[in-house]
Amino acid sequence: MSEQKKLVNEITSMDEDFAKWYTDIVKKAELASYSGLKGCMVVRPYATAIWENIRNELDRRFKELGHENIMMPMFIPESLLQREKDHVVGFAPEVAWVTHGGEEKLAERICVRPTSETLFCEHYAEIIHSYRDLPKLYNQWCSVVRWEKTTRPFLRTTEFFWQEGHTMHETAQEAMDETEQMLNVYADFCEQCLAIPVIKGRKSEKEKFAGAEATYTIEALMHDGKALQSGTSHYFGDGFARAFDIKFTGRDNTLSYPHQTSWGMSTRIIGAIIMTHGDDNGLVLPPFIAPTQVVLVPIAQHKEGVLDKANEIMERLSKVCRIKVDDSNNSPGWKFAEYEMKGVPLRIEIGPRDIENNQCVVVRRDNREKIVVSLDALETEIPALLKAVQDGLYEKALKHRESMTTRVTDLDEFIAIASRPQTGFIKAMWCCERECEEKLKEIAGVTSRCMPFEQEQLSDICVCCGKPAKAMTYWGKAY
Amino acid sequence: MSEQKKLVNEITSMDEDFAKWYTDIVKKAELASYSGLKGCMVVRPYATAIWENIRNELDRRFKELGHENIMMPMFIPESLLQREKDHVVGFAPEVAWVTHGGEEKLAERICVRPTSETLFCEHYAEIIHSYRDLPKLYNQWCSVVRWEKTTRPFLRTTEFFWQEGHTMHETAQEAMDETEQMLNVYADFCEQCLAIPVIKGRKSEKEKFAGAEATYTIEALMHDGKALQSGTSHYFGDGFARAFDIKFTGRDNTLSYPHQTSWGMSTRIIGAIIMTHGDDNGLVLPPFIAPTQVVLVPIAQHKEGVLDKANEIMERLSKVCRIKVDDSNNSPGWKFAEYEMKGVPLRIEIGPRDIENNQCVVVRRDNREKIVVSLDALETEIPALLKAVQDGLYEKALKHRESMTTRVTDLDEFIAIASRPQTGFIKAMWCCERECEEKLKEIAGVTSRCMPFEQEQLSDICVCCGKPAKAMTYWGKAY
Repeated sequence: MSEQKKLVNEITSMDEDFAKWYTDIVKKAELASYSGLKGCMVVRPYATAIWENIRNELDRRFKELGHENIMMPMFIPESLLQREKDHVVGFAPEVAWVTHGGEEKLAERICVRPTSETLFCEHYAEIIHSYRDLPKLYNQWCSVVRWEKTTRPFLRTTEFFWQEGHTMHETAQEAMDETEQMLNVYADFCEQCLAIPVIKGRKSEKEKFAGAEATYTIEALMHDGKALQSGTSHYFGDGFARAFDIKFTGRDNTLSYPHQTSWGMSTRIIGAIIMTHGDDNGLVLPPFIAPTQVVLVPIAQHKEGVLDKANEIMERLSKVCRIKVDDSNNSPGWKFAEYEMKGVPLRIEIGPRDIENNQCVVVRRDNREKIVVSLDALETEIPALLKAVQDGLYEKALKHRESMTTRVTDLDEFIAIASRPQTGFIKAMWCCERECEEKLKEIAGVTSRCMPFEQEQLSDICVCCGKPAKAMTYWGKAY
Repeated sequence: MSEQKKLVNEITSMDEDFAKWYTDIVKKAELASYSGLKGCMVVRPYATAIWENIRNELDRRFKELGHENIMMPMFIPESLLQREKDHVVGFAPEVAWVTHGGEEKLAERICVRPTSETLFCEHYAEIIHSYRDLPKLYNQWCSVVRWEKTTRPFLRTTEFFWQEGHTMHETAQEAMDETEQMLNVYADFCEQCLAIPVIKGRKSEKEKFAGAEATYTIEALMHDGKALQSGTSHYFGDGFARAFDIKFTGRDNTLSYPHQTSWGMSTRIIGAIIMTHGDDNGLVLPPFIAPTQVVLVPIAQHKEGVLDKANEIMERLSKVCRIKVDDSNNSPGWKFAEYEMKGVPLRIEIGPRDIENNQCVVVRRDNREKIVVSLDALETEIPALLKAVQDGLYEKALKHRESMTTRVTDLDEFIAIASRPQTGFIKAMWCCERECEEKLKEIAGVTSRCMPFEQEQLSDICVCCGKPAKAMTYWGKAY
C-alpha cells in the first residue's frame, strides 16, 4: 500500500453525475482498468476476487443440479456460425474475425465466440445418439467477445467473462423446466447472495436471443432508475438441433430431435452490485461475496498491546468470516476512507481504551452505524452483523425499486413518467405487438424489460394502442 | 450411460503403437474430442473435472504464497506485441490475427494472446510507481492460442488452457527467488499430487523463453521414453521493464526498473498423467486429482438388500473420499472395464455373500490387487488404500525413469542410446555451446532437456566436442 496521499474520498457524487460516479468507483476501488485496446478491460485483483466468490457459489449451485463443466474452443469457423440462420443474423455483425494464423491466410475465416451455441451443437451431434445419452447438462466458464461501439467497464465490454450453460433434453417440457429452473437459480442467487431484488419474466419477441424460441430474464433496477438485464435463460425448442442434425433414438425407437436450453450470467453483474448498493463514499459490497468481510483497524497501534490484541481478534474471527488487519503506517482516517471506498461491510476499531474496557467498536458500511461490541461476544456478534448488513442491503434496494415502480394505464402518463430524469420501472398493459413496442421506444425512450411471471391486470387494453392487452409488462430505460 | 455394447477394452496396446494407444485413451476415457477447427479440442467433462482438481490445488498453493488472481484481456494489439524485440520474434510467427471487428476492418491488427507478458507489462506501467507498490504477485487462469502445425490432444493444441503467473519485484534477487520458488511449487505439485517424478533444471540458451534471461523447467519422462516439459518458470531481469518503461521510485529515492518473472503450467499436464500412469486397460489416475476416487459396483444388485447396503456404504465413505455407486443396468463386467478405462483408483465390489460376511472386495486400479476389507474398517482402509495407490504410482514412475536414464561419457554411446526405440533420459557433460547442442540434435535426434540443479561430474569434457564441460545436462526426445 502506497503512503502517497490518496484522496480516496474524491469521487463525483451520484446525484451530480451518475456515470462519472460509476467510473470513479471502478477506478478508485481498483476494480478495473482499461487496457490499450478500446473496450477491453483488465479485471483487477479486487474485482477478480469478487468474481471468484460469485463463480464458486453459482458453480456449486449448478453442480448440485447435476450440471458438469466443459471447456470448449474459443473459435468458431464462419460456416459453423452460419448453420442456424437467426443466430448468425444476430451475431455476425458484432464478432471479431481471425483471418491469419501466423504468416498464413486462413482458407476460411473464424470468429472468436460471441456465445457458444454452435460449438455445443457441433459437439452434441457427435455424442448424442440415444435417449439414454440425455439429458446433457453442460456449463462452461469463459470469456466471449462482441465488438461493441460504446463500452463501459463491466456493463458493456468487447470481451467479457461469464458462464454459459447449454443443455439438451429428451422432451420439450423437460427443456422448458430447465429454462425456468436456471432462471430461478439466477434470481435466488441475486437476491440471497448479492442482495439485489429482481423481476423474473419473459422477453418480448423483439428482445429475445437470436435463434431462441423464448428468452427469460431477471431485471434489476439500478440506483439511477435504469434497468439492468442481469441474467438470461433461453428455450430453443429443437431449432438448433434441426439445423445441426442432432438426432437421437427415442424410447419408441424412432429418431427425434432433442430440445435445448442455454443460460448465462456475466461480469456485468459486478456493475449491478456497484449501481445497486454503492454510495457517495464508494463501493458497498454484500457480505456474501465481499473478498474481505471485516477489516480491523488498530487505533494508536504503536501503543503496547494494541497490535497483539488486533492479531488475536483476527485469529479468532478468521474462523467465522473473511477478515484482515490493516497495520500499515497509514493513518486510521486514511484507512477508514480506503475501506469505505472498497465497500468492506464491517470495520472494527480497537485502541488502548477499548482493550481496557474489553470491547471494540464495529462500524457498518451500509448505514455507518457504530456498535460497541464486547470482545467476548465477537464470534456471535460479527456474523450476526454481517447478516444484518446483507439483509439491510436487500431491504433498501427493494424499497428503492418499489419507490421507483409506477403502474400506468394512460399513454400521456406513460410518457411523463418515462421522461423523468429517473424513469424507474413502468408497469403497463401491452398488446404484445412489435408496433407498439417500437412506438413506445420512439416517443418515450423506453424498451420492454419483460413480461413478468407475476402478472397483474391493470386494465384490459394496451397502454399504447388501446387494443386488447395480452400482458402486463415492465418498461424502462436500460443499460 | 448408454446400454449399447461399448467395447471399452478395445484400445491399441502401448507396445504396438504408443501414439495410437494415447489417442485411444483420450477418446474412450472421454477426455477430449476434436472440434471442427483443426488443432482445437473440446475438453470433455471428465478431463475438465481433472483440470478443476489440478487448478484448485495449484490456486490454493499460489494464494498461500501471496499471489492474487487477475483477468487480463485476450487481445494484444500488434504494436504492443512488438515492444520487446526477442519476444515478438519468438511469438509473432505463431499467433492468430484478428483483422476485422464485425463489418469493419481494424486500423491495427490484434492477436489473440499466445502468452501475456506484454499485457501485464502495459498494466504494470500504469500501477507501479513506488517501491511500496512492489512486489506485484499476479496470476491468471485462461486459455492462450499458438498456431501449431501438428497437434495432439492436451500435448500440443492450437488453443490450450493454463495459468500464467506474472510478478514484479524490487530487486533481481527477489525475482530470482520467486522464479525458483514457483518452479519448486510445480515440482512438489507434480510429485505429491500427480505422482509424477520430475527433474528440475535450467533450459539452455536455445531452449529458453523468448525474451527471458533464464528459463527453468521441470521435465518428466513418459512411458515411451520421451521427455515432457511439464512446467516452466522464467526470470526476465529488467528487460521487459525497460522496453515498457516501467519505473519505480526506490528506497533511495531514485528511479529504478523492477525485476520480473513469469511461470506457467497447462492442460498439457493431463497428457503427462495419461502417458506416465496409463496402461493397456486405459487411464490410471492418481487419487489426488481423480474426479471419482472410488466406484462401488453392486453385484447381483437385484437381490434384496444389495443396493441398500451399497448406498449405505457410499453415504459413509463420501465423508472421506469422492465416491460414486454405479447401479445402472450394465453388467458388472462392463462396469469393471468402463471404470478401468476411466482410471478410477479403487473399485469396491459388494454382493449378497459379501454382505453376509460383513465384508467387501476392493480392487486397486494400479496393480489390480484384490483386498478383502471388513465393512467396519472402511473409513480407515479406503483412505489408506488411496494413499497406497498414490504412493505406488509415484514409486513405479520413478523406477521407470531410473531404468530409462543412462549416464554417457562417449559420443558413440550417446548416439547408440539416443537411437534406441525408447531413448529415455541421457545424462552427459556439455560445453554449453549451441554448436554442440545443434550437432547432437542432428546426429542423435535429441534436444537438451535441462541442466539439472543436482549436478554430477561425469567427466571433465563435453560429450560432443571434447572441450571442457560446463554442465551435466539431460538430453532426450521430447513431446
